[in-house]
Amino acid sequence: MIKVGIIGGTGYTGVELLRLLAQHPQAQLTVITSRGEAGKPVADMFPNLRGRVELKFTEPDDRALSACDVVFSATPNGVAMQHARTLLDAGVKLIDLAADFRLKDSAVWEKWYGMPHACTDLLAEAVYGLPELQREKIKPARLIANPGCYPTAVQLGFLPLVEKGLVDAAFLVADCKSGVSGAGRKAEVHTLFSEASDNFKAYGVPGHRHWPEIKQGLEAMAGKAVGLTFVPHLTPMIRGIHATLYARLTDKGVDVQKLYETRYAGEAFVDVLPPKSHPDTRSVRAANTCRMAVHRPQGGDTVVILSVIDNLVKGAAGQAVQNMNLMFGLPETTGLDQLPVLP
Amino acid sequence: MIKVGIIGGTGYTGVELLRLLAQHPQAQLTVITSRGEAGKPVADMFPNLRGRVELKFTEPDDRALSACDVVFSATPNGVAMQHARTLLDAGVKLIDLAADFRLKDSAVWEKWYGMPHACTDLLAEAVYGLPELQREKIKPARLIANPGCYPTAVQLGFLPLVEKGLVDAAFLVADCKSGVSGAGRKAEVHTLFSEASDNFKAYGVPGHRHWPEIKQGLEAMAGKAVGLTFVPHLTPMIRGIHATLYARLTDKGVDVQKLYETRYAGEAFVDVLPPKSHPDTRSVRAANTCRMAVHRPQGGDTVVILSVIDNLVKGAAGQAVQNMNLMFGLPETTGLDQLPVLP
Amino acid sequence: MIKVGIIGGTGYTGVELLRLLAQHPQAQLTVITSRGEAGKPVADMFPNLRGRVELKFTEPDDRALSACDVVFSATPNGVAMQHARTLLDAGVKLIDLAADFRLKDSAVWEKWYGMPHACTDLLAEAVYGLPELQREKIKPARLIANPGCYPTAVQLGFLPLVEKGLVDAAFLVADCKSGVSGAGRKAEVHTLFSEASDNFKAYGVPGHRHWPEIKQGLEAMAGKAVGLTFVPHLTPMIRGIHATLYARLTDKGVDVQKLYETRYAGEAFVDVLPPKSHPDTRSVRAANTCRMAVHRPQGGDTVVILSVIDNLVKGAAGQAVQNMNLMFGLPETTGLDQLPVLP
Amino acid sequence: MIKVGIIGGTGYTGVELLRLLAQHPQAQLTVITSRGEAGKPVADMFPNLRGRVELKFTEPDDRALSACDVVFSATPNGVAMQHARTLLDAGVKLIDLAADFRLKDSAVWEKWYGMPHACTDLLAEAVYGLPELQREKIKPARLIANPGCYPTAVQLGFLPLVEKGLVDAAFLVADCKSGVSGAGRKAEVHTLFSEASDNFKAYGVPGHRHWPEIKQGLEAMAGKAVGLTFVPHLTPMIRGIHATLYARLTDKGVDVQKLYETRYAGEAFVDVLPPKSHPDTRSVRAANTCRMAVHRPQGGDTVVILSVIDNLVKGAAGQAVQNMNLMFGLPETTGLDQLPVLP
Repeated sequence: MIKVGIIGGTGYTGVELLRLLAQHPQAQLTVITSRGEAGKPVADMFPNLRGRVELKFTEPDDRALSACDVVFSATPNGVAMQHARTLLDAGVKLIDLAADFRLKDSAVWEKWYGMPHACTDLLAEAVYGLPELQREKIKPARLIANPGCYPTAVQLGFLPLVEKGLVDAAFLVADCKSGVSGAGRKAEVHTLFSEASDNFKAYGVPGHRHWPEIKQGLEAMAGKAVGLTFVPHLTPMIRGIHATLYARLTDKGVDVQKLYETRYAGEAFVDVLPPKSHPDTRSVRAANTCRMAVHRPQGGDTVVILSVIDNLVKGAAGQAVQNMNLMFGLPETTGLDQLPVLP
Repeated sequence: MIKVGIIGGTGYTGVELLRLLAQHPQAQLTVITSRGEAGKPVADMFPNLRGRVELKFTEPDDRALSACDVVFSATPNGVAMQHARTLLDAGVKLIDLAADFRLKDSAVWEKWYGMPHACTDLLAEAVYGLPELQREKIKPARLIANPGCYPTAVQLGFLPLVEKGLVDAAFLVADCKSGVSGAGRKAEVHTLFSEASDNFKAYGVPGHRHWPEIKQGLEAMAGKAVGLTFVPHLTPMIRGIHATLYARLTDKGVDVQKLYETRYAGEAFVDVLPPKSHPDTRSVRAANTCRMAVHRPQGGDTVVILSVIDNLVKGAAGQAVQNMNLMFGLPETTGLDQLPVLP
Repeated sequence: MIKVGIIGGTGYTGVELLRLLAQHPQAQLTVITSRGEAGKPVADMFPNLRGRVELKFTEPDDRALSACDVVFSATPNGVAMQHARTLLDAGVKLIDLAADFRLKDSAVWEKWYGMPHACTDLLAEAVYGLPELQREKIKPARLIANPGCYPTAVQLGFLPLVEKGLVDAAFLVADCKSGVSGAGRKAEVHTLFSEASDNFKAYGVPGHRHWPEIKQGLEAMAGKAVGLTFVPHLTPMIRGIHATLYARLTDKGVDVQKLYETRYAGEAFVDVLPPKSHPDTRSVRAANTCRMAVHRPQGGDTVVILSVIDNLVKGAAGQAVQNMNLMFGLPETTGLDQLPVLP
Repeated sequence: MIKVGIIGGTGYTGVELLRLLAQHPQAQLTVITSRGEAGKPVADMFPNLRGRVELKFTEPDDRALSACDVVFSATPNGVAMQHARTLLDAGVKLIDLAADFRLKDSAVWEKWYGMPHACTDLLAEAVYGLPELQREKIKPARLIANPGCYPTAVQLGFLPLVEKGLVDAAFLVADCKSGVSGAGRKAEVHTLFSEASDNFKAYGVPGHRHWPEIKQGLEAMAGKAVGLTFVPHLTPMIRGIHATLYARLTDKGVDVQKLYETRYAGEAFVDVLPPKSHPDTRSVRAANTCRMAVHRPQGGDTVVILSVIDNLVKGAAGQAVQNMNLMFGLPETTGLDQLPVLP
């Protein structure tokens, strides 16, 4: 059994980690920390865990965490980088679900996250945990930067075209729609039910932190600079991201459907739908799957990719467990085989 | 008082027409037809009208309709064109909220709507009822093709840039999101609450009937062919359309914010928000307003326009009443001054 | 024109007051205060008011408020009682939308609201503003305690039976369901979209502040003590209250339908539906109407009353305007004739 | 492995059975019938099953079904009774998720269901499949009448009090709220998103088919006639039932909390919350759990029980699998241990 610790388990990625890990046959939940809720049984906060998770929240404590085999950090940005050095030195693997290790360039990171980086020396070692892109680097890694939710949906959607250089990299558009749980479990006015329900809006058009993350990933795939326009929107549902991606083909002869089917043929968690399909976000609700469909409307040179994930699973906790499985030599799907919940 | 008839008042555009016209100081609801509900009081079907609308549905009857000053057709596509000649000959003005008279080219219409057109001779006379684009043609018109909901949001959003030729017309992207009422009040599985709630999906990516309508409008503005990619999505809210529009500036020096503010300065129903804004669909709920914001993320050459309307008001019944006001020489805002309902 | 001030206009009852008063032909919005938002244009916070309400929020200031003819207090509990004496002395009428003057017994008030009452001497003068119950007392009043949302729906629902003594007053059950806007526009976790959406729960079963308010009202109607069980629930919609009321008839021969129709025959804002009806909350959305239906399932001695209101209108701001109309000798429906928005 | 057939797998209870059975370690999905969809892969209709369920729908065929060990009937009422005799004669166990075998009195059944009963001789043999009430009868049964969703929540909620005779059985009130999936996957106007969203209403107050079912169950527990008022409501969520139950204690000295904890101490799927709790429906989303809380507001003689289930799981497919486990000698929780999905 893998001894697992969680730093900051009171948010939505925290409870989702708990749901997945409590059902994982090789994981043993050992420590879960919360500065604000120390002493409280986890199941008092999240009643879906009653009778199944007996742990109590404890104060953050690097000694207790150091006894784990792996620690997931499900905290706000800026926390994991405080613990990373100590945990790695103690031989603990660390998977950060926040953004501390996602950007390779610390200057870019500091610009977008508005704080100094506490351990820039680890940025080079950290592996960006998108298994479909760099599975072999994840397996031996000690430190994983678990990708953001939008970046997962967008990068998986663009990957086959961009890595082959088949589209005009200067004008890529990612129009993304997220359920409200992506904003986290913080008391804020704009995500109140009465504000976010029966409403739809864009946000962060002038600049969103996932833009440099996606851009870095696409540029690595393309091997050159890309021009990316990224517009996130808030949609009145709890879970789910729908990325609608637009690009212009440079080679109009390519069979895009076949390209995608081939690229993802061996992937357990990517499902390319048949031609003319439109994936629902609910078709992946509560599961670690990315479903996608590819289109060329009116047979033109614009390709449209539709890519959906559950932002809390493939966009956060599920992908983190997938990374854990890889790091510990388990079959990649271990503990991640629950069927999506529909309706 | 203007004597008003409505053909087919049992759908959502029908009940919205009733709500607006019952509160219009110059309109007198005279006839409302429904083949299926003849004899039933309108307020039995739509209890919000109890005590305010005493009319009963009657069988469609061109004689009764011919006694009206204006008739709104709120039926499925293909019905208004059956009544148009008779009503116009009787001196009745006709405003069609369906698509029968929206496309100038009958061959295109027949391809997209899958039926022969019953009165192609009226296509030239019909005026496309987007007042912000062609107010002066609407005033003397006898026959109005009331625009579709997506086409209203998209055309108003692109108008200032496209009519000035400031963007690359070969690659325009309209990523649109609609509330479920846009699908009408038909018993269908895919718009059931349990299917459409807590879910998000694109539809019609291979081809949607609003694509040729928008394309025709943009090409008229641009004075040349345009390349338009249009992707509609279904979002779990009742009312509202959010159009997110992407285009590449050909003149990077243009002040896009000022362009929009100037273009719409005199428009009662178009509200250009300050820079860096993000309009909510709920900010126009139940009102005849289009709110929009313009962005140039990271100061690049891609412009992003956010344009929101209530699909049942500015996207249907409200715009139809706005057209009626113009046709009868009333102030354009008569009966359309209700404030949006928020939250 | 009536000069109107609003204390605390940043919540949902505040914006609803603004929506209604901005459309009221006899009201002139003069002052609106907010400690936290002073200086900010009201329409910056509530974009539905753009172009229609030019006021800015100002610091609370009894001098400015004293120049008004009437002041609405839309603040949290405990604020209006700080302003009441000064405003009344200045000849200003005061309508409190919070609970400061709803309970006649200051000891009961202090127990349920957890603070000392600042002006117990005004409790006797304050008139409980339920027009259908005590219209004649409202007309000359200086100080109105505007009823709570649940109390409005429940009292109107029980009124005809209880004032006639036709039910067993010892066992009355009010099972009530509220939209989330009833919880106000405060940043709290339990009313986040991701918590309150796709979910249903009771709350406050051990005790809710509206229980003593309803009990006081029913006892005044009954002329004796009543046994009331009140269970509120949170339901995933923005606006609306549905009260389902249960009582046992003591006179099984009574024609309950006729009783209700007769009692409310002259009421502009109460609509008794035909037998066997089930009112939707949406049938009163954004309007000042209470719709109700009465049932005797299986012809037994248990009567079931279904009573719906929009919690922000008939349950708050609309009823407050109705009270203002009465206090200023205007027709009771002035400015309150908007049709409900459906769908 | 248990060979499993499903009759009528295209509704919500059908897809939920598929989700649960596809993850059940002892079940082998063998046949699934649908008159309308024969030939279509199940996963084409329900994309959450892609890659996990390879079956195609087939025409209903008693021979194919007779090769199964157990058949679930997830059809509309009136279908299972057509197959029952043939299947039982072939040695197949039958679990009917519709109502054909729920009422013991065929005259009552025919009155409420409006059709003649096709095999009244089996009514006596059929076991009402509420395991917490009659587990021992279920184990050897051949024919199970799986309880309705409301009846499950209400009977489990009242059970401890009613079977002990501690409340006035003449006046029991069950005020119940259901998510929209309870209405099934039928194309109907009243369950469209635009009708059911942001809305709340009661329905069936004059009479609902679950009333005689609940009454029969409570009378069996009580050993005498009961007076039950049952009011169902439609609430804008997909899954979940919340039953709020009211009764008057005849013995005011009883410790209701302890009574419930004791009664359900050994039950894997009933969770009695601590005093003063309010269960959320989402705390059981997608799981086979009934959570409940008991209250005595203000210490009076009225007891309020709050009981929540997922209508598609403990209220339908999950309970059916629980019954299957009992009938085949498996641990009762086999294949039913998924954690609820929250948020």
